[in-house]
Amino acid sequence: MDLVVLSGGMDSSVALSFVMATRVLSSSIETITFNYGSKHNDRENLAAKKICSAYGIKNTLVRLPFINDLFASDLLKSGGDVPDGHYEDQAMKRTVVPFRNGIMLAIAVGYAESIGAKRVYLGNHAGDHAIYPDCRADFSAAIAEAARLGTYLGVQIVTPFVSMTKAQICALGQTLGTPLSNTYSCYKGGESHCGTCGTCVERMEAFFNAGVPDPTSYLGDAS
Amino acid sequence: MDLVVLSGGMDSSVALSFVMATRVLSSSIETITFNYGSKHNDRENLAAKKICSAYGIKNTLVRLPFINDLFASDLLKSGGDVPDGHYEDQAMKRTVVPFRNGIMLAIAVGYAESIGAKRVYLGNHAGDHAIYPDCRADFSAAIAEAARLGTYLGVQIVTPFVSMTKAQICALGQTLGTPLSNTYSCYKGGESHCGTCGTCVERMEAFFNAGVPDPTSYLGDAS
Repeated sequence: MDLVVLSGGMDSSVALSFVMATRVLSSSIETITFNYGSKHNDRENLAAKKICSAYGIKNTLVRLPFINDLFASDLLKSGGDVPDGHYEDQAMKRTVVPFRNGIMLAIAVGYAESIGAKRVYLGNHAGDHAIYPDCRADFSAAIAEAARLGTYLGVQIVTPFVSMTKAQICALGQTLGTPLSNTYSCYKGGESHCGTCGTCVERMEAFFNAGVPDPTSYLGDAS
Repeated sequence: MDLVVLSGGMDSSVALSFVMATRVLSSSIETITFNYGSKHNDRENLAAKKICSAYGIKNTLVRLPFINDLFASDLLKSGGDVPDGHYEDQAMKRTVVPFRNGIMLAIAVGYAESIGAKRVYLGNHAGDHAIYPDCRADFSAAIAEAARLGTYLGVQIVTPFVSMTKAQICALGQTLGTPLSNTYSCYKGGESHCGTCGTCVERMEAFFNAGVPDPTSYLGDAS
């Protein structure tokens, strides 16, 4: 069995499509989604649920309210305003939730061992590396080693996109038929994507650079 | 600043005493405690709180109810009865909570980065190695590498007792003045320690082998 960490954003949704496209007979797939109190979690969670419903895949939502209560980050409801700008700008450091991927992966690994899943997939990619230390390849390798050693099953953490750009992920999603229009990215968490925060800028660039029509409705778009 | 993962059992309580004994001027210490729905968490949490009150140290309790809801283990309220026997017996595998140390450490590392703590201490020891894959030295080294790489601070995970026996920890606690009588170990979670489950047997052996008088009240003790 495979377990996919699914946020409801573009990268993890394409990761789910990728795992589904590579499945073999008798293998099954589940997804796990987290709500850690970010401004955009509620809409992300809903996107994840919709995508799993369309695929007929089980989605388990895990709530981590202590992160919003205890951790310091402007991505959280308890934090300050989300800055506008480019995803790789230093200002975006304020939106880092400390060791978020470490926490989500550790919980996913424990859940994987409980349900007999031998692999946990995460959709982190090369564009995350500038700002997010727990998205980089060396971190991924270390936590994968911890997961293998720390479980009876020897659970593997698989990060198939760790050296890819988001544009490459977008192109792959288009090919695999990922419902990209159902994915949600905006850090501000509004009904429409704001179009100016780091993830919105990154999302627009990915569609543009992949040559894929952007189905997203951004605030201020001419209707 | 240092952060100690404190369960309220003997090992982590001695780890707290150890960190307090080695502190230097201007360094401060906090503790983090988890409730993941085990049968003995409520009493453990209370023990942790008491020990921190006595030391005048901040204790933050983090609740992880999803573990009891989703994970498979007889240690959990949702699991079967806790087996009697020796701590290192194969039967004790039923009490393993999958990747529990991985999850607790990942959360502790994220909290450490949020409060500016550069070190996270865990009291795992050599006696844990037989049954618990996420207590072993190779796991500890891998997760420590993930923590260092995955945080801006380069948070260190420190496991000072990883090669020691529980008897050695008990002896150290006696020397350091750890309030051992306030610590709680029993997996069954009763008011008195049962004296027959794996952790009770391990606790009794540790006091006996350390030559330290055992202050614990066990069920069935002559009064």
